[in-house]
Amino acid sequence: MKTKENHKTVIIDWKPNKNLDKPIYLQIVEYICNKISNGHWLIGSYLPSQRELSKLFDVNRSTIVSAMDELVSLGIIESSFGGGTKIISNTWSLLISKENLDWNKYVKSGLFKSNNSTIQTIIKLEFEDYIRLGTGELSPGLFPHHMMNKIFNKLSTKAYSLNYTEPLGLIDLRIAISNRLKKLGINANPSSILITSGSLQALQLISISMIKKGSTVFTEDPSYLKSLEIFQSAGINLSGIPMDNEGIKYWDINNSLKTIDRNLYNCLLYTIPSFQNPTGTTMTTKRRKDLFEFCKKHQLPVIEDCAYSELWIDEAPPLPLKSMDVNGMVLYVGTISKTLAPGLRIGWIIGPESIIERLGDVKMQLDYGASSLSQLVLTEFFESGLYDEHLTYLRKELKIRRDNAINSLNEYFKDLGTWNIPSGGFYIWLTLKNNISIDKLFKESLKEHILLNIGSIYSFKANHSLRISYAYEDCLTFRNAICKLSKIIRNIS
Amino acid sequence: MKTKENHKTVIIDWKPNKNLDKPIYLQIVEYICNKISNGHWLIGSYLPSQRELSKLFDVNRSTIVSAMDELVSLGIIESSFGGGTKIISNTWSLLISKENLDWNKYVKSGLFKSNNSTIQTIIKLEFEDYIRLGTGELSPGLFPHHMMNKIFNKLSTKAYSLNYTEPLGLIDLRIAISNRLKKLGINANPSSILITSGSLQALQLISISMIKKGSTVFTEDPSYLKSLEIFQSAGINLSGIPMDNEGIKYWDINNSLKTIDRNLYNCLLYTIPSFQNPTGTTMTTKRRKDLFEFCKKHQLPVIEDCAYSELWIDEAPPLPLKSMDVNGMVLYVGTISKTLAPGLRIGWIIGPESIIERLGDVKMQLDYGASSLSQLVLTEFFESGLYDEHLTYLRKELKIRRDNAINSLNEYFKDLGTWNIPSGGFYIWLTLKNNISIDKLFKESLKEHILLNIGSIYSFKANHSLRISYAYEDCLTFRNAICKLSKIIRNIS
Ligand SMILES: Cc1ncc(COP(=O)(O)O)c(C=O)c1O
Ligand SMILES: Cc1ncc(COP(=O)(O)O)c(C=O)c1O
Repeated sequence: MKTKENHKTVIIDWKPNKNLDKPIYLQIVEYICNKISNGHWLIGSYLPSQRELSKLFDVNRSTIVSAMDELVSLGIIESSFGGGTKIISNTWSLLISKENLDWNKYVKSGLFKSNNSTIQTIIKLEFEDYIRLGTGELSPGLFPHHMMNKIFNKLSTKAYSLNYTEPLGLIDLRIAISNRLKKLGINANPSSILITSGSLQALQLISISMIKKGSTVFTEDPSYLKSLEIFQSAGINLSGIPMDNEGIKYWDINNSLKTIDRNLYNCLLYTIPSFQNPTGTTMTTKRRKDLFEFCKKHQLPVIEDCAYSELWIDEAPPLPLKSMDVNGMVLYVGTISKTLAPGLRIGWIIGPESIIERLGDVKMQLDYGASSLSQLVLTEFFESGLYDEHLTYLRKELKIRRDNAINSLNEYFKDLGTWNIPSGGFYIWLTLKNNISIDKLFKESLKEHILLNIGSIYSFKANHSLRISYAYEDCLTFRNAICKLSKIIRNIS
Repeated sequence: MKTKENHKTVIIDWKPNKNLDKPIYLQIVEYICNKISNGHWLIGSYLPSQRELSKLFDVNRSTIVSAMDELVSLGIIESSFGGGTKIISNTWSLLISKENLDWNKYVKSGLFKSNNSTIQTIIKLEFEDYIRLGTGELSPGLFPHHMMNKIFNKLSTKAYSLNYTEPLGLIDLRIAISNRLKKLGINANPSSILITSGSLQALQLISISMIKKGSTVFTEDPSYLKSLEIFQSAGINLSGIPMDNEGIKYWDINNSLKTIDRNLYNCLLYTIPSFQNPTGTTMTTKRRKDLFEFCKKHQLPVIEDCAYSELWIDEAPPLPLKSMDVNGMVLYVGTISKTLAPGLRIGWIIGPESIIERLGDVKMQLDYGASSLSQLVLTEFFESGLYDEHLTYLRKELKIRRDNAINSLNEYFKDLGTWNIPSGGFYIWLTLKNNISIDKLFKESLKEHILLNIGSIYSFKANHSLRISYAYEDCLTFRNAICKLSKIIRNIS
């Protein structure tokens, strides 16, 4: 992974035309010059290797060599030490047009950091042909198309509107969510609920609307939150707090809290109490109570992320922290991405009305609200009872997949690592023996078309872990991939 | 408007229960104390007037007076000079719980500014029962439900996926957009197109990913952009450039450009060349060419917002600036919010691949992409030809509405103001005689249930204008409202 870290490789989406009179190597030279002069490719980015170029352009190596020679002599590329051909100048384009714009300084400006390069790689490869052993999504086959068709039919007879929605989101959806929350001991009226474009956006709204630069957000180590750049981009420190198998060891926060000037900076705690991402851990009832008391005592507001809590396999998890919250100290975040369809992009956040109003105002500034079509569809899912029916089905499916996953690990990984048995959600946190290089494993697995979510994405510390998800691949594919993975490990260690 | 500017009035969503034994005034006291202690209502916010409270709680004034007296003696509210009852302390709640959290400092933190209070007011009132004379939306009645039903039927037979989408958005949608753009002389391959959650999000992505704090964005005065806080929240200066009836007077930028250190700061130009929001002006072909040359010479990248350009009534507008752009200097922004349905929340941005990749990466960090359901539906709209069919219908409808609007103004406003005749889009920029107070007009119109978009929202200078939109209200309602408005003006001036 290291060498590629800062390399941005350009994308080739063209082939030379072998029927033209113009020599093929020259066609390639012109294609590359054009891409640079019109700003598509930036100075400092890299060309694919000559071997890859010859494949991509569908020409033989000697043609590539001629083209590269020409580009070097034009001063447009240079071969850098350690492999890789770098774009160094667009002098060629400057010959044509002195007014050529240098986008470089724009791309490097702006508040927002780039995603971590491992994550960028994973996101890209997810849309290619890999077996996805760590993906945090249900397999598309689990989506209830027949239910969706019923809902399309229903909508066809309704007089809905697809105009801009109210700042907090569709009122019927907020009422439906409010009713669902009652069963979890949460009393939230619709004006304390904000619909967001997925729960990721809920977190982003909090990060840009409510937390001062320099403030600290405490979270489990490892945590989903660590894989996001949103808090860091807003200048907020993330602080990882160790876990045991009952949940976050909150008492470890004490020391850090003492060093923070609470008059100057805000602090928050972010936690995923049920079927945590990435460890699969569920916080016990006692730990929830103690954590809640601790936060109350220290005036530490809590963001409670319940993305997976409906996905229990063995038994329902303890009630959410929000159910203990009479003083409005907990911001509760929910989503249907893990239970129904991430592509709907609907999440929500529950909190004191004053906070919800502020977040809703900022949301209106970002994108004028979530898709009302998605909101309408989800409202129907909730109101018709189809959503609950689907959950029942899903729990059974997840049980089969979880059991298959544990069996597969038992069969192939006994001597290679350790893991937990999650009682719901998607994830198993697999920790390998520490003589195995995870970076090497990631690369070697790619060669075998297996895509891994390595532990360093989620953890604050160096580790030898993988986030395994049994939600995406079917049982057979999963089992075979685990078998293959064990072989790769035996080969490289 | 002034007095309310900094008042945040709380929302009452409850009524006392007259069947209980507990005195009603005490029920009200407890309700209010609870709202404050659980953080729903913040210190510093205001209660509605006693008259309004008596309506909202459905009790008589004397009961309200008793309740207020009790709250004053508890030290929870105070009557502030000039009307308004302010929440001053939550001592009451502190008696119950010492650990009560003070959300105030959180609400005031964060990068993001609040929306301008006039805009907040308008957004809220849009969802109440007002005649909306300035709203930038099509009337819901113009939405083609029959087409949507066809698309639902089609989707029912398809094997679509509602999982997370690729970083740049659904490939089929990007191909469809690429094909449509060809007709406008724009050659954009799918990897230079990013799908966004509405075009507002496209602007937001640019503001946080590509522009340094302290940089300047030039734009028409008045402009839609002025009504947004996104650029200001990112620390960017907006600079308003005057217009004539051929478009922006770009030569006025020269002086400002000289004072900016281009090595330290980025500059950009934002323009809405066709049927501008809010003036309805369309930039001529010559002005487009000259502007483009100017920007090329000064290395000034352009954001070209084409939200309304398909909505021509008399004839198609000149080709976009992007069609002249061989060097990748223009970022082209489009949307279907004004032609089809804002509630789908789909827009797009076209630019050099390097820029699109950067924006796509940041977008993944914000919300993991736009609703794929919305993307699927829109793809069908484009591919089936239904979208173009709908546009043809819409142009006829808008012609009727525009003509009705101009007739209404001719009838009632001849001696009250001046206006342009737009050749497409939604807007008429109505400038009133300057002895009329616009703030007063806004308030008086509200009393008559007419909601106005006043010019100060869009303009960099004080003005006496209104943005009138003929897209939302039907012809008769529009005409009657214009008549009423003229009477209000005659009464107050
Ligand atoms: C714990 C947790 N929260 C939030 C999200 C974001 O999901 P979405 O934005 O699709 O609701 C995820 C997705 O991986 C997650 O694992
Ligand atoms: C010029 C212009 N651009 C962009 C937008 C944003 O529209 P959306 O985010 O719905 O695409 C609007 C809406 O009023 C507009 O008038």
